[in-house]
Amino acid sequence: MTPHTASKDISAQVERVLVEFLDARAEALPDAADLIGEINRVAGSGGKRLRPAFCVWGYRAAGGTDDVSITRVAAALELLHTFAIVHDDVMDQSQLRRGEPTTYRRLSGTPLLRRDRDRFGESAAILVGDLAMAFADELWGSSGFEGAACDDASTLYHAMRAEVIGGQYLDLLAAARGRATLEETRRISVLKSGRYTVERPLLIGATFAGASEDVREALAAFGAPLGEAFQLRDDVLGAFGDPNVTGKDADGDLREGKQTLLVALARGVADPAQRAVLDARLGAADLDSAGAEELRTVFRDTGALRDVLASIEDLAAAARAALKSAPIPPVAAAALAGLAEYVSVRSV
Amino acid sequence: MTPHTASKDISAQVERVLVEFLDARAEALPDAADLIGEINRVAGSGGKRLRPAFCVWGYRAAGGTDDVSITRVAAALELLHTFAIVHDDVMDQSQLRRGEPTTYRRLSGTPLLRRDRDRFGESAAILVGDLAMAFADELWGSSGFEGAACDDASTLYHAMRAEVIGGQYLDLLAAARGRATLEETRRISVLKSGRYTVERPLLIGATFAGASEDVREALAAFGAPLGEAFQLRDDVLGAFGDPNVTGKDADGDLREGKQTLLVALARGVADPAQRAVLDARLGAADLDSAGAEELRTVFRDTGALRDVLASIEDLAAAARAALKSAPIPPVAAAALAGLAEYVSVRSV
Repeated sequence: MTPHTASKDISAQVERVLVEFLDARAEALPDAADLIGEINRVAGSGGKRLRPAFCVWGYRAAGGTDDVSITRVAAALELLHTFAIVHDDVMDQSQLRRGEPTTYRRLSGTPLLRRDRDRFGESAAILVGDLAMAFADELWGSSGFEGAACDDASTLYHAMRAEVIGGQYLDLLAAARGRATLEETRRISVLKSGRYTVERPLLIGATFAGASEDVREALAAFGAPLGEAFQLRDDVLGAFGDPNVTGKDADGDLREGKQTLLVALARGVADPAQRAVLDARLGAADLDSAGAEELRTVFRDTGALRDVLASIEDLAAAARAALKSAPIPPVAAAALAGLAEYVSVRSV
Repeated sequence: MTPHTASKDISAQVERVLVEFLDARAEALPDAADLIGEINRVAGSGGKRLRPAFCVWGYRAAGGTDDVSITRVAAALELLHTFAIVHDDVMDQSQLRRGEPTTYRRLSGTPLLRRDRDRFGESAAILVGDLAMAFADELWGSSGFEGAACDDASTLYHAMRAEVIGGQYLDLLAAARGRATLEETRRISVLKSGRYTVERPLLIGATFAGASEDVREALAAFGAPLGEAFQLRDDVLGAFGDPNVTGKDADGDLREGKQTLLVALARGVADPAQRAVLDARLGAADLDSAGAEELRTVFRDTGALRDVLASIEDLAAAARAALKSAPIPPVAAAALAGLAEYVSVRSV
């Protein structure tokens, strides 16, 4: 089994747990069938399942062998991610996710509505996210793990949830204020995505396996820079990605006025003309493709794009270096190296 | 200690747990301080703390004596309620709650925003609710209770959360469709508020105390009708309540077009002129006080108001009867009778 097929295997196992769990919930509460159906659709709509993969490989890296329980934990993380993206899409007013209409757009088409379709779609999407978070907890609590390791992992889980919510808040605040310092953009990256996508899932998995302090430190040294690289890659894709590949709205981040490292670096060295483009175009609700191209030109010409790509490579290199000396089984190291490669060069 | 002072005491103990818990969270994650401050404000803003009271009295009714752990559980239920009202107010576009601007209104006034104030307020309120739900879980999981009773109580907790979310969905759907049958309005009452406010908190408390089947059945026989009475009272207050007393928007339920039992009963017997008033006024975004008064006249003249008030009294009587024969300590029976009286005649 190569690391690549092993990670695909994790995804398939997580999928099975999710379908079984959600089917049982829909049977128990038919009133919520519409909401549960939407959770099922989002969770099954071809996400990258990075958090489950990091969780399971963190577990295996620390010598864990109980596949059933860790798969349930990994599925809980995927449900938590379903909550996060459904609510994010409401907040960001995103139209597309994974190439399909987002949950709130889709639910605005619920049959027989006589009024306030858009409002109904947003409200129902808030409820879909709420229920996904509640279900994530339920699945988390019924993993089969028990005892002190479980308590320690729960502490990480609670911290991770609060961090991702706090990070999203900072992100929204920066966009609404139209400014963020380099340090603030970094903090957003760390909280919103870095810890949430890589470091916390890895350490949650490792903790369930009763990892030694050495292993935990090595995984953190790998996960922290890689998580930041993930978010910087996300920022680059948000500005330069091909919507046919990312499956997201074209130029959505630019229209929302996200204050990323890319933006902060560009603003720091922009000449007056470039600054005028940033001020006029970034966050403009009526941004068109010509305006988005003007912004991309500023990101290129100021060197901000080059610097962010260099940062991604530096962070990925730091992650790889940490992995080399990590006291973990070779198969786990190989799988994590493969995930690191994917995370830092991905186009989706 | 009278039942009344005992319930006030529960509220004060819950308040202390919440303040201590939230202060610790704000210290651990200063980035989320704005969100946590808002959770603190809402949770401390003079709610009725019915769910904590039912939880603690369910526990005591079943012979429970560990005040520290059950207070933490009760505080978790109050945080869960904070989540529910913050998100409900976004969905219902409510301006006032407990006489103060609602969370999303308040956060739209965050300093230094340069764009999309209203949008920012709604998004930040979604995050406040998300974090309150996450914190409720964290507090729930760190109550100090352990073992089989804890697992059983968690099953009830998970069911309750899914029910209240499912009930809110049915409520929104009925309002957006502009119609609901009597049976549908009843289902909304049961899910959205009945079980969530009374029956589940009671049984959660009783379960932590290892209640016998007899006690559980008696509490369910008390809690189920009382919970429904609570929601019907809420519906009456939504249409006829004095905003200076309820602390909520005047005529908010009528403007949102909530499909309550009151509405379904009125529609069932309305003559053509009355039906025309219902069709034109209920759910009209521009409903003014004269239009609301027309609706109230229909509710009165059709006998719908009288029938709902009679239903509330019948349900409260059923609850009282169940209490009479319940195998629980007299002090608990007296406290629950006092809560029942409050719930069914309240004006707030």
